[in-house]
Amino acid sequence: MIVILNHKTKKEDVSHLVGEFEQMGLRVNLSEGENTTILGLIGDTSKLDIDVLSGFPFVESVKRVSEPYKSANRKMHPEDTIVNAGGVKIGGENFCVIAGPCSVETEEQIIEVAQDVKNSGANMLRGGAFKPRTSPYSFQGLEGEGIRLLLEAKKATGLPIVTEIMNLNYLDFFADVDLIQVGARNMQNFDLLKELGHSDKPILLKRGLANTIEEWLMSAEYIMAGGNKNVILCERGIRTFETCMRNTLDISAVPMLKKLTHLPVIVDPSHAAGLSWMVPPLARTAVASGADGLMVEVHNNPAKAWSDGAQSLNPAQFDELMTDIKRRAEFESRPIAANK
Amino acid sequence: MIVILNHKTKKEDVSHLVGEFEQMGLRVNLSEGENTTILGLIGDTSKLDIDVLSGFPFVESVKRVSEPYKSANRKMHPEDTIVNAGGVKIGGENFCVIAGPCSVETEEQIIEVAQDVKNSGANMLRGGAFKPRTSPYSFQGLEGEGIRLLLEAKKATGLPIVTEIMNLNYLDFFADVDLIQVGARNMQNFDLLKELGHSDKPILLKRGLANTIEEWLMSAEYIMAGGNKNVILCERGIRTFETCMRNTLDISAVPMLKKLTHLPVIVDPSHAAGLSWMVPPLARTAVASGADGLMVEVHNNPAKAWSDGAQSLNPAQFDELMTDIKRRAEFESRPIAANK
Amino acid sequence: MIVILNHKTKKEDVSHLVGEFEQMGLRVNLSEGENTTILGLIGDTSKLDIDVLSGFPFVESVKRVSEPYKSANRKMHPEDTIVNAGGVKIGGENFCVIAGPCSVETEEQIIEVAQDVKNSGANMLRGGAFKPRTSPYSFQGLEGEGIRLLLEAKKATGLPIVTEIMNLNYLDFFADVDLIQVGARNMQNFDLLKELGHSDKPILLKRGLANTIEEWLMSAEYIMAGGNKNVILCERGIRTFETCMRNTLDISAVPMLKKLTHLPVIVDPSHAAGLSWMVPPLARTAVASGADGLMVEVHNNPAKAWSDGAQSLNPAQFDELMTDIKRRAEFESRPIAANK
Amino acid sequence: MIVILNHKTKKEDVSHLVGEFEQMGLRVNLSEGENTTILGLIGDTSKLDIDVLSGFPFVESVKRVSEPYKSANRKMHPEDTIVNAGGVKIGGENFCVIAGPCSVETEEQIIEVAQDVKNSGANMLRGGAFKPRTSPYSFQGLEGEGIRLLLEAKKATGLPIVTEIMNLNYLDFFADVDLIQVGARNMQNFDLLKELGHSDKPILLKRGLANTIEEWLMSAEYIMAGGNKNVILCERGIRTFETCMRNTLDISAVPMLKKLTHLPVIVDPSHAAGLSWMVPPLARTAVASGADGLMVEVHNNPAKAWSDGAQSLNPAQFDELMTDIKRRAEFESRPIAANK
Repeated sequence: MIVILNHKTKKEDVSHLVGEFEQMGLRVNLSEGENTTILGLIGDTSKLDIDVLSGFPFVESVKRVSEPYKSANRKMHPEDTIVNAGGVKIGGENFCVIAGPCSVETEEQIIEVAQDVKNSGANMLRGGAFKPRTSPYSFQGLEGEGIRLLLEAKKATGLPIVTEIMNLNYLDFFADVDLIQVGARNMQNFDLLKELGHSDKPILLKRGLANTIEEWLMSAEYIMAGGNKNVILCERGIRTFETCMRNTLDISAVPMLKKLTHLPVIVDPSHAAGLSWMVPPLARTAVASGADGLMVEVHNNPAKAWSDGAQSLNPAQFDELMTDIKRRAEFESRPIAANK
Repeated sequence: MIVILNHKTKKEDVSHLVGEFEQMGLRVNLSEGENTTILGLIGDTSKLDIDVLSGFPFVESVKRVSEPYKSANRKMHPEDTIVNAGGVKIGGENFCVIAGPCSVETEEQIIEVAQDVKNSGANMLRGGAFKPRTSPYSFQGLEGEGIRLLLEAKKATGLPIVTEIMNLNYLDFFADVDLIQVGARNMQNFDLLKELGHSDKPILLKRGLANTIEEWLMSAEYIMAGGNKNVILCERGIRTFETCMRNTLDISAVPMLKKLTHLPVIVDPSHAAGLSWMVPPLARTAVASGADGLMVEVHNNPAKAWSDGAQSLNPAQFDELMTDIKRRAEFESRPIAANK
Repeated sequence: MIVILNHKTKKEDVSHLVGEFEQMGLRVNLSEGENTTILGLIGDTSKLDIDVLSGFPFVESVKRVSEPYKSANRKMHPEDTIVNAGGVKIGGENFCVIAGPCSVETEEQIIEVAQDVKNSGANMLRGGAFKPRTSPYSFQGLEGEGIRLLLEAKKATGLPIVTEIMNLNYLDFFADVDLIQVGARNMQNFDLLKELGHSDKPILLKRGLANTIEEWLMSAEYIMAGGNKNVILCERGIRTFETCMRNTLDISAVPMLKKLTHLPVIVDPSHAAGLSWMVPPLARTAVASGADGLMVEVHNNPAKAWSDGAQSLNPAQFDELMTDIKRRAEFESRPIAANK
Repeated sequence: MIVILNHKTKKEDVSHLVGEFEQMGLRVNLSEGENTTILGLIGDTSKLDIDVLSGFPFVESVKRVSEPYKSANRKMHPEDTIVNAGGVKIGGENFCVIAGPCSVETEEQIIEVAQDVKNSGANMLRGGAFKPRTSPYSFQGLEGEGIRLLLEAKKATGLPIVTEIMNLNYLDFFADVDLIQVGARNMQNFDLLKELGHSDKPILLKRGLANTIEEWLMSAEYIMAGGNKNVILCERGIRTFETCMRNTLDISAVPMLKKLTHLPVIVDPSHAAGLSWMVPPLARTAVASGADGLMVEVHNNPAKAWSDGAQSLNPAQFDELMTDIKRRAEFESRPIAANK
């Protein structure tokens, strides 16, 4: 960590500060320029709080040299983490596809979609039971009943299931869920993250709408610090000034994360743009980017039902997408595992 | 609501859609151009889901004409709402100042700061007990004990207290808190908002880091839809591309909110820039913008302690700020109420 | 175009406005709701100025239904445009690669790089002669001499050349340049765009740092409105809140542009992230996204020279990238043309 | 400047680099940690190019400690600069108001508006002759004739004039213009800035839509490096994710600029939000922020004419605003100079 002092800092303030750092077990390298004094702190600075340090009246700025996350850091753990979610391996050489409707609606619907996506080659079933909606007047999901229906679909097809948690009190509902999703809006719901850190369930952590990659990794760190190492990151588009798409897919987050962390990274092309016709091209870029998988929205009848959004594929479109994605995953030497 | 159809939409699809809208009790005005057909929907469209409508294959886009929030909407409730928080009136002609440290540290500290800010004319005491920190390795607050110490400070000074809630299970801790803060990171923690909607406590709802004004009002609507009308909005800076300040204060949010909603609006200049020297000028713009109050971080000894950030004023700086702000509030004919 | 009137608009104001529109040859469809009156304007609204219309005191908002660009619009021109730049075909089934140094430095350097990138299979040579630098104290390019050296490299290798124009007075220098680049910072330098509209040279129009796709297409429209239809668009990353990369590559811009316009679209992965190690993965996503080509920075000796940035590949790295990209372009059935 | 090396950097590479820096006249302070080696460079680093340095394979990152601008830097020039524009003093204790229409339309119009704004107390007249329009099909301004009409209005009222330049070839038209505006879209049109640096005319430099404060000061530096020290900065709103206003006024830019530079800073509340009703509250925040003046759009007949936008005040509204602003400027002890 580097601490840059104001050029008017008094000698005694400098010595006092250096003393404080040394008491904390840090080695301090002092560099005095004409206009600035720079302290280089050597040792474990992970407990130093940048905001606190910046608060000193004679500190001009503080710059971190090493990353503030440890468990998630590839430097500390060079090998790829492979998360086992209900038998599906995510990370490493594997490429996985998760598919299903935005919301679970009926037993018939979810089982039909589950069979369709399984037939097309998806590895896991997604479906929303607890739905984070911007408006309190929008459909909030079938809640506990939705999870029950997902479990029926799992029984019928053998596909492991993924669904979102919004409330740490409902963790019991998720006992048989294979992969628990934390949505973008809860990426910094730290109490929820802590609770999940004490679980041993795989967690799918979506990126917040306007969160930096470092903040995202710090949220993964919250879960990992509690003992749960089974974290998968999911890029789903960030908020920018552009208005012709709902969000802007940050595809460069994938190679950046691959460098910074050993955790698996998947891409959600459905939420990224919010436009179904854009799902296939964005899915193709995700495969090429080095991502470990895809999460895609599929609805059995988007045209008839009042129940699905602008971003869902129908089963035929999904099947066509899977044909393409399988070829591409093979091209990347990361074949999609066949369903049993 | 306006629904714009693709220019290749078949006659029968148009009639089918019109029929569906009419069955929902809406009147439909059909306008056919050379390249587009436009449906104007007249009536209560608040239950129509834009995402669902946009999902129809022949729908090009959907544009909302009326606001999706009702309880928070000034059109439905033209008079300013005045929230009574522990005897302090927020909104209307009143200008209020909330002050105190980022975190509660010790009984001595919080009582000393409370007396200092009271002497300078603050109306309420703030202090963090549960702290949302980006890093799991940073100090997470004194939690329940922090609230106990705030209540001691309230007893010692008579100042009502404000503190942040992060977990709906901890609502019991807040029984004697006068104003419950929902932080920026939880602005779309919908389960927490719903829970607070069933409380009768005044709620201070901070804007999310990258949330639009409409999303913010929809989060207020979540609380109000549950029956709790005591919501105060707090602008605290948004995330932009600028890097020389922590966030960018969106001062224009104040007049915009004053037009759209009847709820009180206050400004937090401390978190907005993250720089203590910038608190006074930003506080001045807040008074001039028509805001109903300020929330300012004050620490009794930022220079000695390892416990406070770059954004806190010391009591002397706060006293100087209050002298200035009092003059300005009077200039605006919105005097700060004297403490009893 | 849809004009939404304030619900208190007087009957006579509505009739007056309708009359004005009808005089302009537009048909007006009137839709009166309880709270709003909506005018649907049918006919050629491309000359109506949204800002002007919005200025009327009783107009609440104006929403455009059809795109404001014509020449660039795929609806008016469904076939892909193929631009011929010095014999290289850009657009359609072709995939092209442009490579070369950020700045032209010496005759030796530019000829060496040109030969290297040609050997690796690049179709065109890029090199900066006039350099847009944030600081007036940074190297501003060799200017006219830089173009002379590029022409030497063209003579030596046969590669057509691309270089940036910053000043409409210098158009004469570009007489033998095959493709003229307009940089991100000049995307809305409208006088420069108009001047280039009167030229018949192919133009490579980079996206501005924080410009929407619609604004970008309007800048292309400026050039095309002057008669020059040879415009190629280049996505090079946009500005967001993220700080661990210089810019955020907006890969979704590629499929969106492919839908909206018939113009060719290429991707610059070097400027997008500003990090040389990230060029290969981003280039891979560009091929998968459906882009028509790549523009990549290559320097012959990044490690020794004080002359190149964090984003350049050396010739060996570029050669390795080309081996990969060739396979991928073939996979997409869009082979890179061989050099003669 | 601080250079952070990769932890695997070889001893000889470190020595080589240190040698290079020393040859450039810099003193190097070497600090070796377990994981990183840090070089602190002491001396004049303004010519070092961060991008070049970052390009070295063993350099992890480079952090600037001192600002890259000199002429604009308050550290080098602590006193406020006061620019004299046609007799109006901008900066220091003065508060100035510039007003007038978006576009010059007719002699009658511009003279009428000029007299109106003069009567209300404006110090300068603004009016667009060359108009930067997003669409090539929108009105592009009266160009040279517009400037002639502005000069007529100047003759009629005595008000000095401000108008925008878009093309360095048209500098002759501006011979009698008192203050030349560089618009947001040309903030990084470096050739235009260089040309204006050789002029002795006062320059009003608007902030680019998504430019940082540092980039803005570097553009001021371009003008000043050429010898022209008469630069005034104008904040006019930045681009964010918010959609209910055209731009987001960055009011915190004013105190930040006042700290970083000695140049005058004014605020344009008309372009910031793009909504006329929001001009008065934003103007009030500008006065309170410490700005040196305002630039406001006023049109003599926004309701009748097809010639003005959503953001203009009519003369009566402007007169009311001026009454308010005069009181506020006096409150700040920065009275608006009376017109002669």
